[in-house]
Amino acid sequence: MEFSIQQIAGMLGGEVKGNGHDKINMLAKIQDAKKGQIAFLSNPKYEQYIYSTNASAVIVKKDFAPRKDIQTTLILVDDPYLSFTTLLEEYHKMVSFQKEGVEEPCFMGKSSLCGSHVYRGAFSYIGNFVKIGTNVKIYPHVFVGDNTEIGDNTILHPNVKVYSGTKIGNNCVIHAGTVLGSDGFGFAPQPDGTYKTIPQLGNVIIEDNVTIGANTVIDCATLFGDSTIVRQGVKLDNLIQIAHNVEVGKNTVIAAQSGISGSTKIGEHCMIAGQVGIAGHLVIANNTSLGAQTGISKSVTKEDQKLLGYPGIDIKEYFRSYAVFKRLPDLLQRLKELEDKVSRTEHIENHK
Amino acid sequence: MEFSIQQIAGMLGGEVKGNGHDKINMLAKIQDAKKGQIAFLSNPKYEQYIYSTNASAVIVKKDFAPRKDIQTTLILVDDPYLSFTTLLEEYHKMVSFQKEGVEEPCFMGKSSLCGSHVYRGAFSYIGNFVKIGTNVKIYPHVFVGDNTEIGDNTILHPNVKVYSGTKIGNNCVIHAGTVLGSDGFGFAPQPDGTYKTIPQLGNVIIEDNVTIGANTVIDCATLFGDSTIVRQGVKLDNLIQIAHNVEVGKNTVIAAQSGISGSTKIGEHCMIAGQVGIAGHLVIANNTSLGAQTGISKSVTKEDQKLLGYPGIDIKEYFRSYAVFKRLPDLLQRLKELEDKVSRTEHIENHK
Amino acid sequence: MEFSIQQIAGMLGGEVKGNGHDKINMLAKIQDAKKGQIAFLSNPKYEQYIYSTNASAVIVKKDFAPRKDIQTTLILVDDPYLSFTTLLEEYHKMVSFQKEGVEEPCFMGKSSLCGSHVYRGAFSYIGNFVKIGTNVKIYPHVFVGDNTEIGDNTILHPNVKVYSGTKIGNNCVIHAGTVLGSDGFGFAPQPDGTYKTIPQLGNVIIEDNVTIGANTVIDCATLFGDSTIVRQGVKLDNLIQIAHNVEVGKNTVIAAQSGISGSTKIGEHCMIAGQVGIAGHLVIANNTSLGAQTGISKSVTKEDQKLLGYPGIDIKEYFRSYAVFKRLPDLLQRLKELEDKVSRTEHIENHK
Repeated sequence: MEFSIQQIAGMLGGEVKGNGHDKINMLAKIQDAKKGQIAFLSNPKYEQYIYSTNASAVIVKKDFAPRKDIQTTLILVDDPYLSFTTLLEEYHKMVSFQKEGVEEPCFMGKSSLCGSHVYRGAFSYIGNFVKIGTNVKIYPHVFVGDNTEIGDNTILHPNVKVYSGTKIGNNCVIHAGTVLGSDGFGFAPQPDGTYKTIPQLGNVIIEDNVTIGANTVIDCATLFGDSTIVRQGVKLDNLIQIAHNVEVGKNTVIAAQSGISGSTKIGEHCMIAGQVGIAGHLVIANNTSLGAQTGISKSVTKEDQKLLGYPGIDIKEYFRSYAVFKRLPDLLQRLKELEDKVSRTEHIENHK
Repeated sequence: MEFSIQQIAGMLGGEVKGNGHDKINMLAKIQDAKKGQIAFLSNPKYEQYIYSTNASAVIVKKDFAPRKDIQTTLILVDDPYLSFTTLLEEYHKMVSFQKEGVEEPCFMGKSSLCGSHVYRGAFSYIGNFVKIGTNVKIYPHVFVGDNTEIGDNTILHPNVKVYSGTKIGNNCVIHAGTVLGSDGFGFAPQPDGTYKTIPQLGNVIIEDNVTIGANTVIDCATLFGDSTIVRQGVKLDNLIQIAHNVEVGKNTVIAAQSGISGSTKIGEHCMIAGQVGIAGHLVIANNTSLGAQTGISKSVTKEDQKLLGYPGIDIKEYFRSYAVFKRLPDLLQRLKELEDKVSRTEHIENHK
Repeated sequence: MEFSIQQIAGMLGGEVKGNGHDKINMLAKIQDAKKGQIAFLSNPKYEQYIYSTNASAVIVKKDFAPRKDIQTTLILVDDPYLSFTTLLEEYHKMVSFQKEGVEEPCFMGKSSLCGSHVYRGAFSYIGNFVKIGTNVKIYPHVFVGDNTEIGDNTILHPNVKVYSGTKIGNNCVIHAGTVLGSDGFGFAPQPDGTYKTIPQLGNVIIEDNVTIGANTVIDCATLFGDSTIVRQGVKLDNLIQIAHNVEVGKNTVIAAQSGISGSTKIGEHCMIAGQVGIAGHLVIANNTSLGAQTGISKSVTKEDQKLLGYPGIDIKEYFRSYAVFKRLPDLLQRLKELEDKVSRTEHIENHK
């Protein structure tokens, strides 16, 4: 992956000042950049570096007027930060999708189909009757069970484990070690104190544009034909637990180590911080914000609330109450003193 | 896996009304069922669907009297829901145990033995001196270390990692990504501020009929000959931490993301909800219930308690206290007003 | 691995009393030891066992004077417990590093280099341009991405997943299923309610002598040239979340299921208990202790504090406040009674 400065300027709709033929193979900060790398200058406090940088090119604002000689090639644009971000995204996309073809040994069962530009890493395992779209990247040690469907442009990082019957949409990224479709946690207590396993026969559906972090677990639904569903645009962090029959609404974001219990429906555009726990069979309204470590034991029916605590209450009320909590021993002491005072007063009253 | 309606009726001790020769290959809900599928009718509010269902067969109560013409074949039984559940369990068992034989490439070390009907998936790794019972299912990417023993009818889902010396009983199910036997977290502080690793040389024992979820971790015991033990019938959910030398008592159930610290002994028939933390070197009495996110820092010596909070207290007391916690700013205000009132009264008294 | 009693005595600087030629292949407790094993006697209350033990050798204090006949061979040393611990550590080291060579099939990309005495287990995957030091042990199903560096004497247990560009130091131990270098959780909200992925282009650096438990996740830094850093001597337990751009200071210890949010800097010699959560962009001073399940939402600027609660406060204050929390309903009741009493008094006063 190497582009000429001229090509990059073309991509950004910018103008080259200097040698446009040099090759760029990496992005860097202006203060760290080396030959072959491209940097940007947006914040004036970094201007000093442009006079000494080793970068082969620097993206600057159209009207940038150097106060000294400059060795590096400039690309003049309207918004250097935005242009650099665009380059970053393009670079990231190219890196993410650069692997292609089949590394051996890998395993593919019968009647499974792959689209074009697919990468299947060494030791990846694809079961029977699997449908894989175009430009899908399946890293080493990935397991894809029977009857699974994976949409286009989806990346399964090393060792993602997809149980049979799972459906994954387009443009999804799933990080290493994540498990999709393991059995829901359902057991029926028996008279002798043991538990009988309730068969878990549903599946998991991951819609389009979903990102899931590393070592997260999403269980399958309990009944045939039912699904645990992660709606489009959802972003899940690492080490999250999504139990059977949960539905996570569109564009909801959940941070690391949070857990959603069985059959709970999370609304759209929710922001759930880390280590939050939500009990089962609840409904959480759209646009709900839950602070870190909050526990939710009842449905949240009103939208746009910010909750904290166990059980979660309005975040400002929580902090007001917690401020008093910290002074509770003092408060108790004051109550005692007041009781003494009042009972002395009473005593005096009674003996007047 | 296909059975005739007649065969299924035989299995359930039911009577066929209609064509018993049609084949069934799947179970479904009555409102969703397609040709080739079997459904049931138990709740009268679903009766409407039996007149239009595409199911090839529906299980109904013996005395069911249709109010219109029915196209589907009926199986008449005493308890349709129970019969359907039985079918589900049988189906689930068949699906769970259907894989058999060896997929290549897979790895098996020296002096290791497998019983009959074993499945060893591609890229599974079995070390040296391993004993594997009959009907064991070892999915792709499973790692089984040296000197391990695995009982009959046990299923290790994709990528379960079993360290050397672990013993797993009969009829266990262990889900994807779970780790058994990693080193306990033991370090001795040194005078220079560094830590020296305390060798972890014990193992993990999983008794019969244990189910463990995905991405859970159970550490080995510290000393030679000692074991971290999960007793028979225990059900562990996903992403749980079981530290070195812990013992989890018979038929105890632990929900996702809970953690048990080193050397703690959990009693039998306990119900531990999600995200609970239990400190080290404690004893938790039988039949203890711990609410979600509870922290336990002292042994629980009395049986049959339900605890909540950090540290955990009686669940009803917790909620009563928390109800006041939410009103603490108000309570503080009332205390202040009372103090003012009393000190004004006193002042008046003193000046009378 | 077998040594004569004479060899072991030499290693410990001890003196043999009895047959020094017998072979030892295992360590055990004196009450459990079998032929071929070595035990120790330090606590006098175990003395009884030395007269009946089947151990081939027992390590005892120099001045040990048996009260009966002894069958086993003795090794006389200054401090039997210390000697046994030394043996344990040596044994553990030998066991940890005994695997060597390459098991097939395994995968190694182009331009990658390994030092001597390296073990590469079956189904391990090493990408391109990887540098691996001497005596490194790479267990089955390990994934090592492109451009990664791994120092000497480091052990990657089964199925550790190392993303491209990660640097791991010398003498590290990383347990099964842990992920290093997955994408940081960064998304920019868009006007239409969706999120755009912020490219994560930094890496992870693990310095020397770091131990990391199983199924833990450490995300890469966001920007090129930036790193998420785990400093030398750090010990991390299982199922921990370390977000992008975090730095964990030298010799800090973090227990299972704790999570550190993005860009937070943890000081040196901190002790962080289990299930702790720390918010993003904070600084935690050296020698901070955080009790289990603590939530930290502001920087901790003073060293040597012990904190607990959510948000964390001084641990003694927390317990004092919690003691009152448990009595809050009673406290509220007392306040009510006092209010009534005072208002009655007032009433009387007003009517006098």
